[in-house]
Amino acid sequence: MAEKTKSDRGVSRRGLLGGSAKLAALAGLGGTGLGVGAGNLLRPAAAQQQQQREPGRSFEVKPGQLDDYYVFSSSGQTGEVRILGLPSMRELMRIPVFNRDSATGWGLTNESRKILTEGLLPETKAFLAKRGGVYLNGDAHHPHMSFTEGRYDGRYIWIQDKANTRIARVRCDVMKCDKIIEIPNANDMHGMRPQKYPKTGYIFANGEHEAPLPNDGRDLENIEAYRAIFTAIDGEAMKVAWQVIVDGNLDNCDADYQGKYAFSTCYNSEMGMNLAEMTAKEQDWAVVFNIKRIEEAVKAGKAQMMNGVPVLDGRHGSPYTVYIPISNGPHGCNTAPDQIHVAINGKLSPTVSLIDVRKLDAIFEGKAEPRSAIVAEPELGLGPLHTAYDGRGNAFTTLFIDSQVVMWNIDLARRAFAGEKVDPIIQKLDVHYQPGHNHTSMGETLDTDGQWLISLNKFSKDRFLNVGPLKPENDQLIYTGDGKMTLVHDGPSFAEPHDCIIVRADIVNPKDVWERGDPMWEDARRQAEKDGLKLEEANEVIRDGNKVRVYMTSVAPQFGLEKFTVKQGDEVTVIITNLDDVSDLTHGFTLSNYGVQMEIAPQATASVTFTADRPGVHWFYCVWFCHALHMEMRGRMLVEAQSA
Amino acid sequence: MAEKTKSDRGVSRRGLLGGSAKLAALAGLGGTGLGVGAGNLLRPAAAQQQQQREPGRSFEVKPGQLDDYYVFSSSGQTGEVRILGLPSMRELMRIPVFNRDSATGWGLTNESRKILTEGLLPETKAFLAKRGGVYLNGDAHHPHMSFTEGRYDGRYIWIQDKANTRIARVRCDVMKCDKIIEIPNANDMHGMRPQKYPKTGYIFANGEHEAPLPNDGRDLENIEAYRAIFTAIDGEAMKVAWQVIVDGNLDNCDADYQGKYAFSTCYNSEMGMNLAEMTAKEQDWAVVFNIKRIEEAVKAGKAQMMNGVPVLDGRHGSPYTVYIPISNGPHGCNTAPDQIHVAINGKLSPTVSLIDVRKLDAIFEGKAEPRSAIVAEPELGLGPLHTAYDGRGNAFTTLFIDSQVVMWNIDLARRAFAGEKVDPIIQKLDVHYQPGHNHTSMGETLDTDGQWLISLNKFSKDRFLNVGPLKPENDQLIYTGDGKMTLVHDGPSFAEPHDCIIVRADIVNPKDVWERGDPMWEDARRQAEKDGLKLEEANEVIRDGNKVRVYMTSVAPQFGLEKFTVKQGDEVTVIITNLDDVSDLTHGFTLSNYGVQMEIAPQATASVTFTADRPGVHWFYCVWFCHALHMEMRGRMLVEAQSA
Repeated sequence: MAEKTKSDRGVSRRGLLGGSAKLAALAGLGGTGLGVGAGNLLRPAAAQQQQQREPGRSFEVKPGQLDDYYVFSSSGQTGEVRILGLPSMRELMRIPVFNRDSATGWGLTNESRKILTEGLLPETKAFLAKRGGVYLNGDAHHPHMSFTEGRYDGRYIWIQDKANTRIARVRCDVMKCDKIIEIPNANDMHGMRPQKYPKTGYIFANGEHEAPLPNDGRDLENIEAYRAIFTAIDGEAMKVAWQVIVDGNLDNCDADYQGKYAFSTCYNSEMGMNLAEMTAKEQDWAVVFNIKRIEEAVKAGKAQMMNGVPVLDGRHGSPYTVYIPISNGPHGCNTAPDQIHVAINGKLSPTVSLIDVRKLDAIFEGKAEPRSAIVAEPELGLGPLHTAYDGRGNAFTTLFIDSQVVMWNIDLARRAFAGEKVDPIIQKLDVHYQPGHNHTSMGETLDTDGQWLISLNKFSKDRFLNVGPLKPENDQLIYTGDGKMTLVHDGPSFAEPHDCIIVRADIVNPKDVWERGDPMWEDARRQAEKDGLKLEEANEVIRDGNKVRVYMTSVAPQFGLEKFTVKQGDEVTVIITNLDDVSDLTHGFTLSNYGVQMEIAPQATASVTFTADRPGVHWFYCVWFCHALHMEMRGRMLVEAQSA
Repeated sequence: MAEKTKSDRGVSRRGLLGGSAKLAALAGLGGTGLGVGAGNLLRPAAAQQQQQREPGRSFEVKPGQLDDYYVFSSSGQTGEVRILGLPSMRELMRIPVFNRDSATGWGLTNESRKILTEGLLPETKAFLAKRGGVYLNGDAHHPHMSFTEGRYDGRYIWIQDKANTRIARVRCDVMKCDKIIEIPNANDMHGMRPQKYPKTGYIFANGEHEAPLPNDGRDLENIEAYRAIFTAIDGEAMKVAWQVIVDGNLDNCDADYQGKYAFSTCYNSEMGMNLAEMTAKEQDWAVVFNIKRIEEAVKAGKAQMMNGVPVLDGRHGSPYTVYIPISNGPHGCNTAPDQIHVAINGKLSPTVSLIDVRKLDAIFEGKAEPRSAIVAEPELGLGPLHTAYDGRGNAFTTLFIDSQVVMWNIDLARRAFAGEKVDPIIQKLDVHYQPGHNHTSMGETLDTDGQWLISLNKFSKDRFLNVGPLKPENDQLIYTGDGKMTLVHDGPSFAEPHDCIIVRADIVNPKDVWERGDPMWEDARRQAEKDGLKLEEANEVIRDGNKVRVYMTSVAPQFGLEKFTVKQGDEVTVIITNLDDVSDLTHGFTLSNYGVQMEIAPQATASVTFTADRPGVHWFYCVWFCHALHMEMRGRMLVEAQSA
């Protein structure tokens, strides 16, 4: 009955401590915070025995094994970036970006609010000033990693916000958002892709919706005056580089592997204002942007400055754009790793049109018609939305209405377009249900490896236990390493991922703890210096008129201050520095009944400002379990009531 | 090459439609919204072929199979309730409760803000009025389902908020939060459990932190005046029934299977204000509450009314409580399904103490000493925090410092306590790392089935791909159906689950679509009636001074209004009713550059109010992918600029 597994640690430790875990817990203080018996926590991760996985078609990742890839997933209207592991498809982390996050305090802390506000336009700042100062929502569809010469380089992830017209960036070294900018002149950023070559470089982004320019109340019903605009952002400086006004609207976009062209789909060439108008014509188009000509025109001063940004007119007839007629409301736009083809997915036409980028020079020189760029147009099924690639000459296209993914061969499609009687379709796989985006492992880079495909489906219906009227989406994992598609795993996800990228694990190398000199809390450091303090050492209260700055360090299981006293009505800023230097030893700071809660990761500083207008005893406590004595890691803010 | 899988649908459909998906998409309107080819979406879920799983020790749930259990999980500082499937451990749904949710609009919609505010105390409402009106954070640890006669009955889930002193309830028919109340006189609700017998009934909840009562600025440093308080909430009416002041503080709690007693642990009997003071004594206690005596006293008018709630004094010497000395800072409190034992987990003592509930009557009658209730106190390991049960006489206790779960036998523990030389420990299993709560399938009910155990561990360190300084927690799945513990699966989770419950799938039966008469949007219905309208039919704009009410229906892929015009400065309320009656056909409403975004599920109504102070053309669009023409499901709010 008293069978012991090989993981038992024997008798002696308990005996040594006299049976008291309190001594053990206290003995563990000051560096590990975890106490005796947490030996494996003290070993560096590299030394930890990790069974190497046999890569293969099973999605199972056993306890102790690691996934092979990172998936950076959008979350649509949830407004965050998610990190999953593949093939397990488990959600490993959430990175708040456009959403208000209760746990980390994103949207509350001074550090996050700076990021959420510094890049906004003045009129938006004024608008938000009456509403708490920051947006609390976003609609984030398209996460993409930075490139160098056509390959992921592990520096950043960018993502757009369709709800509030922004572009955000995530630092891959700490997996946190560090910059957000609002895009002037555009409306509701949807399609977004990074420049692949020579490097990112530009972030290309589409303002999907049409509105007057400027949109200040003029021309409300004058549709002729509505515009949509294509934007190139300098992704490193996080500033808009230039913009191009187009005819029609803009949907998705992508970039080539040569650094010469960017591409956009358009589903509303009609400039319609309702469903019938937007779908009136049988053909819309794909628009190609000539980066070199645009850059030269901007340099030569040919652009009009609007809201501080150089804007060119790229409507029909300009030297900057070519409009290629495509049937019918094309949606997805996907560059192939063969560096030649770009798929324009027909949505309301059962076809995908392939652009051959080598044909574009001639068209821009006026020597060929726009349609000459189209070298294949296979009929694949109903509702083609997005195309991904296996790097072996094959493509996978999602068929929204048919609820399938179709695998087809590019070369056969070219030959069929040229008149040969060949069928490019290799296989059709049912997906559950109604796929939007899909993505292959490393599939938007020169390192496409043909192993895995994710189909991000919009409806799950009966695939999972019934969870009520709101259902999850279903991100299905499909194995392709053996040359065909095999459905392996259903992955429920909360509303609602659009695109994702699948990045080999060796490319992503975040830190384990922060570095003290990180710019994230630069303002707190400067303020501390003015107060004559060093963040790493300060446990004191500075009174500055009715402003009070409370500096604290934290080392599990204690905050540096047991309590502090303020007057009702004071503006209080609490600045906490987590001195623990151990992987995974994050602290939290929650101030009861004040709506204050934030994360302080190992070696980080975080701060929050609030008005102390509730009198009384308010406990603050650590909200990230960090120690056997975690429940005791708390202190009091004492707020003296104003005299009546 | 043109191999077709058996899932292909053949050629004819495309031919019939003339190769145009647009016709197909449009043909699908008005009831399904999904178009031809979505056949399987039109079949009721029950008719869908679902492979039945072989229950067993593997966690794998294949595509098309369903999980066997629902897991309702806390999320700690994330502030939501999560639904997972077991054994797959996939997150199926997020239910916003205390957090601000970008996707659903929880915290923004009128319906959610009513729930988030109506149960607050007046001083909190006044405090929040200057800050946007609602809390945007919470710290939710302990989700529990409603009972009838000791078994889950599928009606509600309750959960507490330690950050802002609240209790929330989720309706299991729609999986949405419907009520939140703030608890007066208490501070920072932590331990929370429902009454098991005869039914829920009461929700028992601990205010963990100590403060003056009332906490209005008096006695800031007068520790003698600090109190902690035990609360019983009427879970069906969602009103506080009564409260009991205690000595010391309160940690976790549970209820018996007889409806006679509730139990709480206490780790700060010292009423210390810092770490050293809180851990000064070798023993704290467990406090037992005599429900019948309390109810009688309240009925007899013996309670003091404080903030509208009857409060009894339950400190040492009162007839309402018994204090059982326990070593040493006891934490978890877990009633066993044998209906006899309650585990008090020693935390800083390597022991778990078992209370035998049959001994309590005598103690309350003064015929026995409090310690006589203790019938077992096995020494199990370092840092015992929580205990769960297999229903076969065995218990599983988490050992935080040892980073293990220990399986032990209750009968052997009793016999050892009585002096026999037996070892109750059956097995110790390493978990990764540092477990807090654990929970067994159906394990807090009379239907405990001994199949599965989840260990909710606080650190993941090297178990997953490195995602930066902030790491996920690790909820590990352990199979116990064959009488021993076998680790089966690692489950990363975002900060940070505390407890969860595992509920057999047949017990949970939510609706697929809402019912039109649901009280959730009662206010919108009444306002519509006043405006002479029916929500299900109204597509019009009502102007009421500077208030404008915009009523719209939605049927994929169209909103009922293509546009509406307001004046800058108008207070606009948009009320949308989703007429689609199809499972999984949720719509969204996002109003660009206004911070407005919300969910409207099938057959639901949702509304949002904002001031139209940004002039210009603002597109609103559906943000839940719902149709092939989803991108075209949009319209314009035209805001006329104020004259200068």
